[in-house]
Amino acid sequence: MTRDLLLRDVRPMGGPPVDLLIRDGRIAAPGTPPAPDAAVEQGGGALLLPGLVEGHTHLDKTLLGMGWRPHQAGPAIIDKIETERRLKREWGIDPARQSARQVAQSVAFGTTAIRSHVDVDDVMGLEAVEGVMETRAAWADHVSIEVVAFPQSGIVARPGVAALLEGALRLGADIVGGLDPCAIDRDPKGHLDVVFGLAERFGRPVDIHLHEPGALGAFSLELILERAEALGMQGRVTVSHAFCLGDAEPATVSALLERLARLDVAIATTAPASRPVPPVPRLRELGIRVCAGNDGIRDTWNPYGNGDMLERAMLTGLRWNCRRDEEIAMALDLCTTGGAAVLGLADYGLAPGCWADLVLVAAESPAEAVVARPPRRLVLRRGRAVARDGVAAGPGGEAAQPTG
Amino acid sequence: MTRDLLLRDVRPMGGPPVDLLIRDGRIAAPGTPPAPDAAVEQGGGALLLPGLVEGHTHLDKTLLGMGWRPHQAGPAIIDKIETERRLKREWGIDPARQSARQVAQSVAFGTTAIRSHVDVDDVMGLEAVEGVMETRAAWADHVSIEVVAFPQSGIVARPGVAALLEGALRLGADIVGGLDPCAIDRDPKGHLDVVFGLAERFGRPVDIHLHEPGALGAFSLELILERAEALGMQGRVTVSHAFCLGDAEPATVSALLERLARLDVAIATTAPASRPVPPVPRLRELGIRVCAGNDGIRDTWNPYGNGDMLERAMLTGLRWNCRRDEEIAMALDLCTTGGAAVLGLADYGLAPGCWADLVLVAAESPAEAVVARPPRRLVLRRGRAVARDGVAAGPGGEAAQPTG
Ligand SMILES: [Zn+2]
Ligand SMILES: [Zn+2]
Repeated sequence: MTRDLLLRDVRPMGGPPVDLLIRDGRIAAPGTPPAPDAAVEQGGGALLLPGLVEGHTHLDKTLLGMGWRPHQAGPAIIDKIETERRLKREWGIDPARQSARQVAQSVAFGTTAIRSHVDVDDVMGLEAVEGVMETRAAWADHVSIEVVAFPQSGIVARPGVAALLEGALRLGADIVGGLDPCAIDRDPKGHLDVVFGLAERFGRPVDIHLHEPGALGAFSLELILERAEALGMQGRVTVSHAFCLGDAEPATVSALLERLARLDVAIATTAPASRPVPPVPRLRELGIRVCAGNDGIRDTWNPYGNGDMLERAMLTGLRWNCRRDEEIAMALDLCTTGGAAVLGLADYGLAPGCWADLVLVAAESPAEAVVARPPRRLVLRRGRAVARDGVAAGPGGEAAQPTG
Repeated sequence: MTRDLLLRDVRPMGGPPVDLLIRDGRIAAPGTPPAPDAAVEQGGGALLLPGLVEGHTHLDKTLLGMGWRPHQAGPAIIDKIETERRLKREWGIDPARQSARQVAQSVAFGTTAIRSHVDVDDVMGLEAVEGVMETRAAWADHVSIEVVAFPQSGIVARPGVAALLEGALRLGADIVGGLDPCAIDRDPKGHLDVVFGLAERFGRPVDIHLHEPGALGAFSLELILERAEALGMQGRVTVSHAFCLGDAEPATVSALLERLARLDVAIATTAPASRPVPPVPRLRELGIRVCAGNDGIRDTWNPYGNGDMLERAMLTGLRWNCRRDEEIAMALDLCTTGGAAVLGLADYGLAPGCWADLVLVAAESPAEAVVARPPRRLVLRRGRAVARDGVAAGPGGEAAQPTG
């Protein structure tokens, strides 16, 4: 039983100011009297949002804190894979250290739940999963982290990776990952048989990176949906990126969307500005769960990013030309409620009984928070302050300030 | 004769650290001994960039400092025009006050030159031009401002606007503006005859907003280029947005690009994520001058933006998938040297003899400055400190902090 916390003068989703009582890490019913010794936080009329949700990132391989390292890879996915395999060792990209750096920064920005793909390959073995598990344990009071065992270099073409994926699940990885079944392994059936085979044996969800464009991506997506249906995995499959939904033939896209909705398969998007992307507003109209993610942050794949999900909401809003408050609210929703739906977070939100995973922002409205992205005034996780004025309190109580 | 300023330990464009002497507002030749009473600024090894250039904005109508105002307009340009005409009066969007707010913020972000389109219409008459001229005079030591007399509501369809444009030029507006000759006035010949007629009579450059897409935009662009050629206006015409160069037929685009290059017509872009845009890398290969701009910042057209040209460089880099340092340098160049080329700024840059319009950023490289966008450590204009640690010193010496 923790001490009551009374959060005074905050405006949930930009509405009228209220006092919010937090008891045992959860939002109490309105009118519940605080205990006499309740702690008090003055909200100063700030906007109250539920904790931000990072739906797709790669904690194990950010270069945060390692100085500026010019991007070396060519434009093709395979260049990025080969370059990263080389640089992991050359640069000593330590998964435990680097994931802790990114987590500290995400917490400072108000993220209270993260889904991270973590490399499982024949270069690093399970070292990256072990490193992120270490960070997850150290930061468990600050943020919940889902670990996807991610075969970044392929499965079929890399001997031993299938066994390593199994090892990752035994170590505590939560989700089975996959990657471009045609383009990387050149053997979509072989790749997906391993991914869904593990999902079936271990009873785990699946989250597959699908960069393949147009008709090729649509083909791979069909193979994924066939397996999701055959295994009765409704609600337990996510497809990340799914660029093909932005550039395949309209009739093909329509058929895929109908099937995604029926099988309750979720989509994770970064809403990139430079290429076709899944039609997010239409996905949502169809009831398809959609979350946003920053993907890699300052890593060998992508030099951009800082982990701020309000910035990702802004980029999503710009990508979809969201101008009205209700349109910008959709972009933010991908980073809050939409993310929670994809990650399957229980008791998420601002309703009584929900976990007090909360962010206070000096903004008039959710839309202004997305546009202005001011430093987070206060971040609560299970009712405990984990960051204040843009600085996270680390597991040892040390300050962990965003670096970029 | 002002006092010498010695800028110690700065890294021009991320190169090795140097001491830079500034005399009479200009960068002195290397090895010039400072006067014994020279002022000294410690750069602390920061990155030194030339002053940022805002190539396309609307100072007169930002809503900065007026609280969050939800976007009201529909998606069509004409909705935005009609909504704005109504709200200018309803909300009291004072051009002098609002332009000063945006200028303060731009200066704090390291912008030392701005081209602003300023509304000239039958609602406000010349009030907006007068207001921005007032701000330009008050902030003349901080930033140079080019004023474009901009017929936001059209010319032919709005009686009196042609005469108002002439009045704006007599008041001191520098450039003749224009807008979508087909789509708004429904009379491209009539619209462009006024624009280029004023340009010829007053000997002024032209900068025309061209949102029209595809074949329609290509037609309007041809009309513009015909007039630029007939009047011998090589190097004195800018087309802003020019979305048609992103979605017209490839052969049409190629022909237009060849002609843009030959007539030295410049392009201003915001690199929006949500629609086709001119092919910036190809424009640059052809030697076409290109600058970037934030366009409207938090106004009735667009709720986003803060005036930071490093953020615009980031958005441009994301739009063009710039990952390598030299690619990110291109995005930054649109906001520095490219902007200076479009605005026609004399003695711009980091070479000896150039004006000391400079920005110091705590970043290792220009690419990191774009990615991380830290608060500007120091901004100099003609060698005088005009902003420090993200806060501008206003004309009266008061601090003017960015609001978003
Ligand atoms: Zn990813
Ligand atoms: Zn404009």
